[in-house]
Amino acid sequence: MSDVVGPEGGQMRKLLRVGPGPVDLAAIDPRSTPGLPAAAGRGPARKEWARAQVEALGAELGRQQEMLYANAQSAAGPGSATSEPSHADAGLGGDRRHRVLLVLQAMDCGGKDGTVKRVAGAMNPLGLHIRSFGPPTEEELRHDFLWRIRRALPPPGYVGVFNRSHYEDVLIGRVEGLVDEATWRSRYATINDFERELTGQGVTVVKVLLHISYAEQGERLAERLTDPTKYWKYDPSDLDTRDRWDDYQAAYAEALQRCDSDAAPWFVVPADRKWYRDWAVAHLLRETFDRLDLGYPAADFDVERERARLQGQMGSGQVNGR
Amino acid sequence: MSDVVGPEGGQMRKLLRVGPGPVDLAAIDPRSTPGLPAAAGRGPARKEWARAQVEALGAELGRQQEMLYANAQSAAGPGSATSEPSHADAGLGGDRRHRVLLVLQAMDCGGKDGTVKRVAGAMNPLGLHIRSFGPPTEEELRHDFLWRIRRALPPPGYVGVFNRSHYEDVLIGRVEGLVDEATWRSRYATINDFERELTGQGVTVVKVLLHISYAEQGERLAERLTDPTKYWKYDPSDLDTRDRWDDYQAAYAEALQRCDSDAAPWFVVPADRKWYRDWAVAHLLRETFDRLDLGYPAADFDVERERARLQGQMGSGQVNGR
Repeated sequence: MSDVVGPEGGQMRKLLRVGPGPVDLAAIDPRSTPGLPAAAGRGPARKEWARAQVEALGAELGRQQEMLYANAQSAAGPGSATSEPSHADAGLGGDRRHRVLLVLQAMDCGGKDGTVKRVAGAMNPLGLHIRSFGPPTEEELRHDFLWRIRRALPPPGYVGVFNRSHYEDVLIGRVEGLVDEATWRSRYATINDFERELTGQGVTVVKVLLHISYAEQGERLAERLTDPTKYWKYDPSDLDTRDRWDDYQAAYAEALQRCDSDAAPWFVVPADRKWYRDWAVAHLLRETFDRLDLGYPAADFDVERERARLQGQMGSGQVNGR
Repeated sequence: MSDVVGPEGGQMRKLLRVGPGPVDLAAIDPRSTPGLPAAAGRGPARKEWARAQVEALGAELGRQQEMLYANAQSAAGPGSATSEPSHADAGLGGDRRHRVLLVLQAMDCGGKDGTVKRVAGAMNPLGLHIRSFGPPTEEELRHDFLWRIRRALPPPGYVGVFNRSHYEDVLIGRVEGLVDEATWRSRYATINDFERELTGQGVTVVKVLLHISYAEQGERLAERLTDPTKYWKYDPSDLDTRDRWDDYQAAYAEALQRCDSDAAPWFVVPADRKWYRDWAVAHLLRETFDRLDLGYPAADFDVERERARLQGQMGSGQVNGR
């Protein structure tokens, strides 16, 4: 397995973070590859390089995920990890309530499912908590728009992934006129309060817009209309939504601007190239884990005593002590 | 990627199925490798071979899982798949309520987590529904023992994995005397009724006991007591449970015998060798999927009309028709 090569620690979080100030999605090239190191090579070779890197990153993410899980299970709290926050806005080191929540948003065909498959799929499924949000059900509509979101949060120790999220309520809700303007405008503040509350509960939020071009979406829709094994991914309403492309882009831009914060930052990942998309999201997750500065928990039992008990049970056999 | 090589279709389900009649776990060697084809080679080479096979099987399981998911999503029902059941006891082909439920049971260190990581981990996490059952909570204890199980069932289209299950209620419940004998004895019939009900709801159940030896459990516990990154997996009560090894084996044997049925069969997978364990469980899943005879659903929209609409939006560009 290859080693993870560049970029510098924390660089992707800086490069892909939105704002401050107005967000101009049209100024971000969906085919660009910010942060891709020279080691990736040039031309088509980059794809193979990135795929191998995602595999190596996946193994690293799996280790981080296991530490997150182990700390939540353990009564002892953190062992080798420092409980001092290493960054001013982390402040959560060694907290047993730790969990990570990756929020994925995109236009149709933007690659949410593919990102889950390749990036989350590199981790241990036991520690994943993946939730997809479709059009709200009747029951969900009877509640506040955050009701179904709160019920879907990852438990402590888990890596949660939201495939669509509460942001739909300031995107489709706005563009399709499902609620009046005063209502969707008020939701930005509601969302900011909610995400601040999450941070206080040990949830580290990473929000990613997978940014594709209108042309690329057209190509991917065409594929779903030619390959019979992809028909099930297509819905005629996809073209109605595509007709309102500019409205959706404007709604995204405003949501990203109004709901970006240090506690729950928004990142824009150029996503026309799937290999770059997966590589960038994997790095964002890795840098997020790094800031948590996790370690395995100390034993919450008397190790020597337990070794002696086991040795007693095993008869004369020596327990494999180091 | 290598191709999947042997065993013959359906063979693992036959080889590893318990009974009929009394189950004698002591007669099943936890280091044996039933069904492993000659292509695996001999000695240590088999491990590498099996790992590569599990990877190839994982890709195949991923395709099956996607078809399962696609059918549940689609309003059109099955397309290329026949809706005729191809086996007398399958009877579920083309049902939109289809889901698969893998139930994993084992003594401590039996490899449940490892199996989930390697076998379920080869599938798409979006379509997995994994639930672990620990000691019941106070709320759970106020309900019937199947209450928490029913709430944890996979939705249609999903592959569910139970990491422990309702069988704990005739295992730990019996051995530790948590309930009286009349109570745990009555549960066999309750479980059989429940599992028959599941089958009627489109849930295909595969129950697997990962069968390890007392000596191998000792080795694995010793590892958890020497490697500080594994302390979190250890609990002093593990040794108390180990002290009642024979009682647990007897409880397993009776549960497997009383709750094995064609609709919800029990399989015993020798699990001292992790590579064999993963390979065998992957094959059991594959053979289970094969019996469902899945295909991708037909389009539930007018394909030509949608192509024309998309082409209109794309201007003069030709939609990639075949």
